[in-house]
Parts: sequence; structure tokens; C-alpha cells
Amino acid sequence: MAGSARHLGVVVDTSRSPYVRLRPVSLARVRLSDDFWRPRRRINREATLPAQYARLEQTGRLDNFRRAAGKIDAPFSGVYFNDSDVYKWLEAASWTLCTDRDPDLERMVEAAIDEIEAAQRPDGYLNTYFALERASERWTDLTHKHELYCAGHLIQAAVSHHRATGGDHLLRVARRFADHICDTFGPEEEGKRPGTDGHEEIEMALVELYRDTGDRRYLDQARYFLDVRGRGLLGGREYHQDHRPFREMDRMVGHAVRAVYLNAGAADLYAETGDPTLLAALERLWHDMTTRRMYVSGGIGSRYEDEAFGEDYELPNDRAYAETCAAIGSVMWNWRMLSISGDARYADILEHVLFNAVLPGLSLDGQSYFYQNPLSDGGSHRRSPWFGVACCPPNVARLLASLPGYFYGVCEDEIRVHLYAEGDAEIPLEGRTVGLRQRTRYPWDGSIEIEVAGEGEFGLALRVPAWCQDGSARIEVNGETFHGEAVSGDYARIRRPWRPGDRVRLTLPMTVRPVESHPYVAENAGRVALMRGPLLYCLEQADNPGLDLRDVVVPIDGPFSAEYRPDSLGGIVALRTPAEVARPDEGWEGRLYREARPRTGEPRRPTAGVTAVPYYAWANREPGRMLVWLRAR
Amino acid sequence: MAGSARHLGVVVDTSRSPYVRLRPVSLARVRLSDDFWRPRRRINREATLPAQYARLEQTGRLDNFRRAAGKIDAPFSGVYFNDSDVYKWLEAASWTLCTDRDPDLERMVEAAIDEIEAAQRPDGYLNTYFALERASERWTDLTHKHELYCAGHLIQAAVSHHRATGGDHLLRVARRFADHICDTFGPEEEGKRPGTDGHEEIEMALVELYRDTGDRRYLDQARYFLDVRGRGLLGGREYHQDHRPFREMDRMVGHAVRAVYLNAGAADLYAETGDPTLLAALERLWHDMTTRRMYVSGGIGSRYEDEAFGEDYELPNDRAYAETCAAIGSVMWNWRMLSISGDARYADILEHVLFNAVLPGLSLDGQSYFYQNPLSDGGSHRRSPWFGVACCPPNVARLLASLPGYFYGVCEDEIRVHLYAEGDAEIPLEGRTVGLRQRTRYPWDGSIEIEVAGEGEFGLALRVPAWCQDGSARIEVNGETFHGEAVSGDYARIRRPWRPGDRVRLTLPMTVRPVESHPYVAENAGRVALMRGPLLYCLEQADNPGLDLRDVVVPIDGPFSAEYRPDSLGGIVALRTPAEVARPDEGWEGRLYREARPRTGEPRRPTAGVTAVPYYAWANREPGRMLVWLRAR
Repeated sequence: MAGSARHLGVVVDTSRSPYVRLRPVSLARVRLSDDFWRPRRRINREATLPAQYARLEQTGRLDNFRRAAGKIDAPFSGVYFNDSDVYKWLEAASWTLCTDRDPDLERMVEAAIDEIEAAQRPDGYLNTYFALERASERWTDLTHKHELYCAGHLIQAAVSHHRATGGDHLLRVARRFADHICDTFGPEEEGKRPGTDGHEEIEMALVELYRDTGDRRYLDQARYFLDVRGRGLLGGREYHQDHRPFREMDRMVGHAVRAVYLNAGAADLYAETGDPTLLAALERLWHDMTTRRMYVSGGIGSRYEDEAFGEDYELPNDRAYAETCAAIGSVMWNWRMLSISGDARYADILEHVLFNAVLPGLSLDGQSYFYQNPLSDGGSHRRSPWFGVACCPPNVARLLASLPGYFYGVCEDEIRVHLYAEGDAEIPLEGRTVGLRQRTRYPWDGSIEIEVAGEGEFGLALRVPAWCQDGSARIEVNGETFHGEAVSGDYARIRRPWRPGDRVRLTLPMTVRPVESHPYVAENAGRVALMRGPLLYCLEQADNPGLDLRDVVVPIDGPFSAEYRPDSLGGIVALRTPAEVARPDEGWEGRLYREARPRTGEPRRPTAGVTAVPYYAWANREPGRMLVWLRAR
Repeated sequence: MAGSARHLGVVVDTSRSPYVRLRPVSLARVRLSDDFWRPRRRINREATLPAQYARLEQTGRLDNFRRAAGKIDAPFSGVYFNDSDVYKWLEAASWTLCTDRDPDLERMVEAAIDEIEAAQRPDGYLNTYFALERASERWTDLTHKHELYCAGHLIQAAVSHHRATGGDHLLRVARRFADHICDTFGPEEEGKRPGTDGHEEIEMALVELYRDTGDRRYLDQARYFLDVRGRGLLGGREYHQDHRPFREMDRMVGHAVRAVYLNAGAADLYAETGDPTLLAALERLWHDMTTRRMYVSGGIGSRYEDEAFGEDYELPNDRAYAETCAAIGSVMWNWRMLSISGDARYADILEHVLFNAVLPGLSLDGQSYFYQNPLSDGGSHRRSPWFGVACCPPNVARLLASLPGYFYGVCEDEIRVHLYAEGDAEIPLEGRTVGLRQRTRYPWDGSIEIEVAGEGEFGLALRVPAWCQDGSARIEVNGETFHGEAVSGDYARIRRPWRPGDRVRLTLPMTVRPVESHPYVAENAGRVALMRGPLLYCLEQADNPGLDLRDVVVPIDGPFSAEYRPDSLGGIVALRTPAEVARPDEGWEGRLYREARPRTGEPRRPTAGVTAVPYYAWANREPGRMLVWLRAR
């Protein structure tokens, strides 16, 4: 595997963090050969990344660097945080080069890094918006102008490039800027300027830079930026998570991407410092998000206004904002919580968000994107090939590029399998390397066979997803029933002396699950969403011609049938069920309200077979209505 | 009655419009002596208007005029459309002076008019934001900068002041500005600048100025501004109703206040021109609004984003925007449609919006306001004494001040009674004057007695509200049953030779009506709203201690009891019903979603008596949860 020997290749480097239970496994050591992720990652490399690079050129994002370097004479293009799109693209391209050889991509990466370096000021400062005529406005509006956010993405890109390729070209650029930031911001009594970032991101970046370089001042600087939040430096608004000190927070509020990026950074800080007040706040916030403010898709941030979290149970479907970037931030945060705690509930949410809140953000051809992800739509919400504010496209690309790094973890002498897909891995475990081969058609099929190529006693822990009913997952070791615990929402931990060729088979129940939401989510009352395995389903007009999806009433107890359709939507399992068709009666003609009468008896309604498809695949055919929450009886 | 002899005193002067069926009745000829509106109009005069005037001073809105006149040296204060608040206040104060003597108020009015006049430029232009250092920016951004909107409110204020008091001081100022506008905007071939208003308002104003002055160029100018919409002069967005020509519109879209102001202006144009394509568009738009895009309160404009109409059936309750000004605009539009057609359905909506969408915008003490009017709330949405963007406060004030003008209309030799309240009126009818005295406790009681002081044959038409079930309204004339038609949603038309002292009694059924909404309004599925007479009800925490209102399940078929409570909320009829309390079961602890199981049998739930109060009166006690749409069984 490319790079596995030379480079670290871990996405979040908690390999030496004192306060984590799980150690990461290099993505260079994991090969996905499945039919779900492999084609998506190939499209990401072959189609998405080159197309995005072309956009970075066409939209002037790279020219902004050339301009700042004095190479061209042109006005600044676009929005003041456009540098960050170049950085996120570089991160995506770097992780891609860690697993796949691609000379064209490599050339683009090198070219972009050259442009970036040339734009750096002698003092290390680097932001193309605050160059030339705006140089004097540097750091004058931390609340709104995203300078530290862009710096964070530069650092993340540099660390990724270094870990993925071994090259330290961009890392040197990033360190110079990071040093400048450390020299600039801090307590007044140290002769520095108090300040923190209006859009969080740099916290994670600085901790990762500390991990990559060993230089503790970056960790201290990340802590400083976190510690001064909630003291009014940003105006005290919930929008910026500046309404109170982080350690006192207990609700997910404000701009959703900012909020989860902040939490990911705080988790990184905990991993290095063990500060229990950080962990307590993170656990409160996670509980608040997952029990009050998260869509059934795993999407977060329900409001268009401020791209923000709403109140408890405020989860509108048509007008869901549920930004793709917020879902990606949730994956990043959950991954760090998983590393810290080893607790499978974080892996459950991570997988769920990945399939049902991140993936819908990308078209099947890898060429267009959703910014908002509604859970119902009349047919007008369609993906775009790019945005003026283009945070989501390269964000999806970097997650797909780094995805193999999320599959496994190591806890002392135990291998944790977090995610399932056909493929193999070589996992370093206390001085030796253990080979694992997964054979499965997951997420379409619940049978997962893992062949172990290793010898001696160690643990193998398989995640039993929380969506399995207790006792429904079965495990066999070399054909014999495993009698240890296999509790859903936890890892089934198999510890034994292994021999090469040993096989473990995990069988997860792939029944269709109608899911209801808490009665305080008003819009979903009397409705269910269909799930199967890790996947959320929806109805689309394309599969249900002649039906108004709003009239469909599905039976809570089925029957539901599942059918693999290799030629549909890139290959999916579709669901079928007989449903009632409850047309609004004639009394509704031309009316919006009417006097209610007591219901007498069961209505007689015509029935129709309806077809549901995975929610991640919606809006890849002709425009039409889509619905996740279905009326049920 | 003050002013009745001297001045016209009609709110919208369609008295000579060729294309209307109903003629207006001067508000100076209508006296409300009831316990519902009279105290509100007294508070409006005694408390609201002086407090608003003080705000106009404190916030620099009047100083902006002094500044533009060169009287003081100070920076411009506030937002670029702040002049309009002064004008709307003047309109409110003027109508007030038409019905009530108030020397203090009169002095304020005169002082404000002096300040306004002094700020006018020699060429007639008048806008304090585009004065002095910004004089060169006049008319450079019609799309966003509200110059024509402010001009429209100046004209409306001037016309109102003239009609209400007979004074033409402000009217002369307004005409100079209107002439300047007529000279400036028009087709290029006439040597003018093409352009129209980014925020509609001037259309109505110019038609009214035409009606007041007889000068046809104002009417032509209004038509010009309407005719050039939808040709991209404003950028072509739905937000500004510039996406297509007005006559081709069929959906209520974009900013809600703009949309209804535009429609009111188009209706005024129809009233003068009889252009059938205008009326056809207005009827399509009204049908769209009332059958797809209106809250059960009558509120409109469901989205926080852009303060705009949403899609069909997009009517979120917690996050309803439902701006108070949009409801007022709906009253204005419906009044014009009623005048044009004589059709009671417009009066039905007008009354409904007035009670349930305008009134909630004002606190019972007349000192604080809602901008947004949600239909459910957790206890955090409270009225404010003022806003930075203060359109709503003076808008409520001008409607309350002019309210008596909406009670009656005349159609040839028939008097139409649109609204009911204790009081009397003197209505000019074909050369004579007919006195009417209403005796009623409406809206609390359904009995309305009308004593006629007039002689000879003429028609008296009483509106039978659409909320009455057909056949449920009873009419007696001098104690004998009236056998003519009394169809709900139409006028019951009584034509006879009258003698002084004749009495007509209309009895409306005041049963409690649980109302359901169209099944496509997802959030209201399985829920009802309670209504009684014209009033919408809600549950408030204050009346239902110890209950989580979200758990309340009311019986669709009651029983409901109604009880007058003179000491509660200014005197209300409260509703009581026994309800079930459906607490989320223990399975919801710490969960947002779970697998749904088929329901088996009826759940056994504890019951509790619940109390509902009129929605207009909510949030006048301690903060707490409020709910309009109640779970029902």
C-alpha cells in the first residue's frame, strides 16, 4: 500500500495523546475494495478533485494567491474566506495521494502549494483577502472576517499533506503562520492582543500541528483561543458560541458548523490535557444534540436563519437547513469522542451521519452538491456544481479521501472494528502487524465475515450497531456460536489465541425498521421514517408515479420487502410496501381550514405499492417530490 | 361627532371610484362605545401615540428632519427608512383627531409637520437619509433604499391628515414631492428615468392622492410603477415581486408586507381604471393566499428568511414569522377587495385578520409590540416596546385609529354592516342620513341588535360570518323571524320600509369550534385549533399550571364550556374542556427517535381540565408556553 511504510497517514493523530483510549490506524493501511465506498472514492479522485481544482482556478481562488504574491494585477475575487476552499481541497488531494498514485493530482497539489507559499508575507502572515490594499486591516475584525478560520484550514492542509505524503513544504509555510499567530494573540499582560476566532476551526488545527511537530506552544495557543470564548471578545452572541465560557455550555446553539468545529477542537484539547471540565461540557453538548436537536438523518442545524441550531425539537423537514458541512463537522467531533472514550455510541452516530447526512450532500456522479439537506421537498431543491460560498464541496471531498482512516482503532492489544465494508487492513498491534480481511456486502447485507491473518492472543472487537434490536446480532467464530456479549450499541469483544485463517462472522438483522420521533417534534406526529441497516430511506416521485407522496399512509407493521437493484442509483436495495392512499377529501377543495368532526370508523382508502430508496441517493433523477417522514397507521 | 360635517373622513376614498360596488362611510360618522374596541382606541390615543412620539424623538427620527433642514448638526440616526415611522405615526394621530379632540396630540402633529416641511428640498424631494452628504445618492438604489416607500407613507399621511382634519399643510408638502416623482420617473422616451419601488407602498398612496386632489397624473404615475414591475428593473427577484409582470402573477411570493401592499395598490388602481387583468390577478392571488399560505390566525409570511411567504402549506408554528405589518397589509388589501366586489368573504378575512393577526401584535397596555407572531412558543417570545426597524408599532396605531371607518359601507340604497360592536353611526344614504345603533357584546356574545333611525324603503345588509354553520344564524325584525336568506359567508339583505325605532336582531351561534387544517400542513396533523365566534384561542401556561401544554390532547367533540371573566386579560371569554394528558412514555427518556410499534388499543391517560384564552391576548402575563394547535382525538 502506498505510503504505509514511510508516513504516518493517520487522519487525527491521537497515537500519542495521553487521554484517549483508542489509537488511530493509518488510512494507508486500510484498503476498501467494496462496491459502495470504493467507487465513490474513485469518483472523488478521478472526477471530483480535478473538477474542484478547475473551479478554484475559474473562480479566481488561486488567482487571489497569485495576486497577493504580486504575480498578477487583478482585483480580489469572491468572498473573504475563499482561501479556505483551496486549503480544504489540498487536504482532500493529500489524503488521496496517501492511498492512490495519481501524478496529475500530485502536480496540482505542488502547483497550489507553490502559489500559497509565494503569497506568504515575510512575517508569516498569509491571507489573500488582507493583502495589498487591505493589509492594514489584518486582524481588525476577528468576529466576522474568518482570518483564524482560514489559518486553521491552512494548518490542517499542511498537517495532512505532511502525514499523507511526507512532504514538509506546506508544513513550513503553515508553521510560519502559526508562529505569527502565537506571537500575536494572547493575554495583554504578555504584551499580546486578546482575541479569538469568529469561526472556529483553528483549535483543532493547532492541536494537530502540536501533534505533528511536538511544539507545545501550538497546544497552548489552541487552549488560549478556547479559554477566552464567552468573555465578550466576539460580542457575546450564541451565533459565535461566545455567549458563555465553553466549560459552562450545555446546549448546542448558534451557527452549527462553528459549534461542532469548536467541539472537535475542545475534544482534541481534552485528548492532550485531560481537563475533566472540557470532557464534561462535551458530554453535555453531545447529549443535547443527539436527544433534542438532530434530524433522523443525523443532520444538524435546523434553521436557515444564521445556519443555526434551533430550539429543542425544532426540526422542520421542508425547511431543514442541515448543512452538509455541519454533518461533516459532526463526524469529526464524534470521531474524537470515540477515540477519547472508546464508546461505540459515538461510532454509531458517526456511521449514521456519514451515510445519511454527509453522503446526500454529493451527487452520485461526484459533480454537484447540496448545501442544505431537507427531509422533504416539492421537487425544487437540486444540487449545484459549485457555490459562491463553497465550503461544502471540498469538505465532502476531504472526508471521502480520508475515509479508510475511520474504519479501525486499537485499544492496547484489541483491534476495534468501527465500520464495515469489503476490504483489508494491516493493523499494527503491540509490535506485530495483524491482517484483517472483511468480506461483506454491507450496507446492503448484514453478513460480515472477518478473516484474521495474525497469530497469538489479542482482542478483536466488532461494533454491534445500536440499530440492532438487543440479541438480534449473531456472531460465529470459525463456524461456532460466540457466547460472549454482543450488546447492540457496544462492541462485541472476542479475545482468544488466533491462528491465521480464523474467521469471525457477524450477522446483523437487516429488517426494515419504521422509526418514530419524540412526540414533541410536532411535524412528525403520526409519521414514521423507514430505515434498514444503517440507511435512512425516503420516497421519491420517480419511483412512485401517479401518487402524491403526501397522501401515502404506510402500515407501521409492514409487510416491507427489500430488493437489490443493481442498475438503480448506482446499485441500491429498494424497499417496497403496500400503502393506503389518503387523498384529501372533497371538503378540502379551496380550503385551508375547516371545522373538525369526530372521526367515525376507519376510512376506506385505495391501496398502492410504494417504493422507497436510500435517502443519500435522492435528487439524482428527474425533479420530483421527496419525503422521509411518512404518514403511518 | 367631531369633524363629521367638515371633513371627508374616509379611510380609503372610493366614494367616487367608478369600479367599486361599496362606498365608504366616514369614520367620523361612526362611534364605537363598546367594551372591546373603545378601550383599545382610548389606550391608542392616550398611551400608545404619546409613547410613540417620545420614541420618535428619543431615537433621532425627528432629529433626522431637523438635521436635513439644517437646524441641528448631528449624524443621521438609525435606518434609511426611518422617515416612514414618523409618517405612519402622523397618519395614526390624524385619524385619531378625526374622532377625538386632543389638543396635546394636535400640537405634536403640528410640530411634526413643521419639521417635515422644513426638511423638504426646493425641488420637492424629501428624504432625510438622502440629505446633505448623501444628496448625490438620491434615487441611485431604488431596489434597496426605500425612497419611494417613504414617499408613499408621506403621501398617505398627508391625505389622512387632510381628510381627518381638513388641514392641507402636509398635503402641500406631499404634492410637491409627488410632482417631483412624477417628473422624474417614467418611460425613457418621455425623457424620464425608468424605475419602480423596491418596497411597494407608493402605488396606494398615489391613487389616494389622485382621489384627494383630482389630479390624474398621480393615478397615471401609480399605474406606471405597477406596470414596470417584472421587467427586471429591480433585479427580477420574487422578494421584490419583480419576478414577472403583476398581471401574470398567481402565487403570493417574496416579502409578505411588500406583496400585500402591492396588491392593495393594484386594487386601488382597479377601482379607478376597471382594468380586468388587474382584478383577475388579484383574485388569483387572494385565492392562493387564503387556501395555501395563511395561518389559522390570518397571519401571512411564514418565513424568517426574507420575511417572506413560503411554499404551499409551509406554515410552521414555532417559527412563524407572520409579521404584524403583513397582517395590517392584508386588512388593507381585503378592504379594497370588499369595496370593489361587495363580497362578504373579504370582510370575513378582514375581521378574522384584525382580531387574530393584527391585535396579537399589541400588548393589552398598548405599550409593546410583536414583530413576529408565532402560533406556539416556549415562553421566550415577548413583546418589545420598540424596534430598530419600527414599522409595526405605528402601523398598528394607524389601523386602530381608523378602525371605525371599516364598520360600514353603502351600496346604492343599501347599508352594509361589515363589523359588529356596540355603538352608533349616521350613514348618508341617497340624500338622507340613516342612524344605526348597534347593541351587542360581540365578540363575546352572538346577539346583535340594530336599531334603525331612518324612514322610508332602503336595504340593510348584515354580514353573516363564514364561521357560522349554514342556517345557524337567526334574524328577527321587530321580533318577527326574518324569512329571507341568511347564508353564512354572505350578507343577509333586509329591504323594507323602515320606521324610526325598528329593530333587527341578528343572533350568531357562539359554539366552540375545533378547526383542523388541510392534511398537507404537516405540522398540524392530528391537531385542532379552538375558535369561538371570530376569535382564535390558545392555551397559555399561566392558566394551566403543572401541565406541559405539548402533552394536552383535547376531545374533538368537547364538551367545551365558555365563561366570561371580566377581570382576566381586560375581560375575556375563556374556554374550558377536559383533556387527556399524554406524557411521553418512559421509552423516550434520552431519545429522539425509536423504532415504532403498532398501536394496540386506546391508551389510558390521566385527564385534566384545560383553559384556553383568546390568542390576541397571549403573552400579557408571566412568560410561559403557548400553543394554538392542540393535539386532538
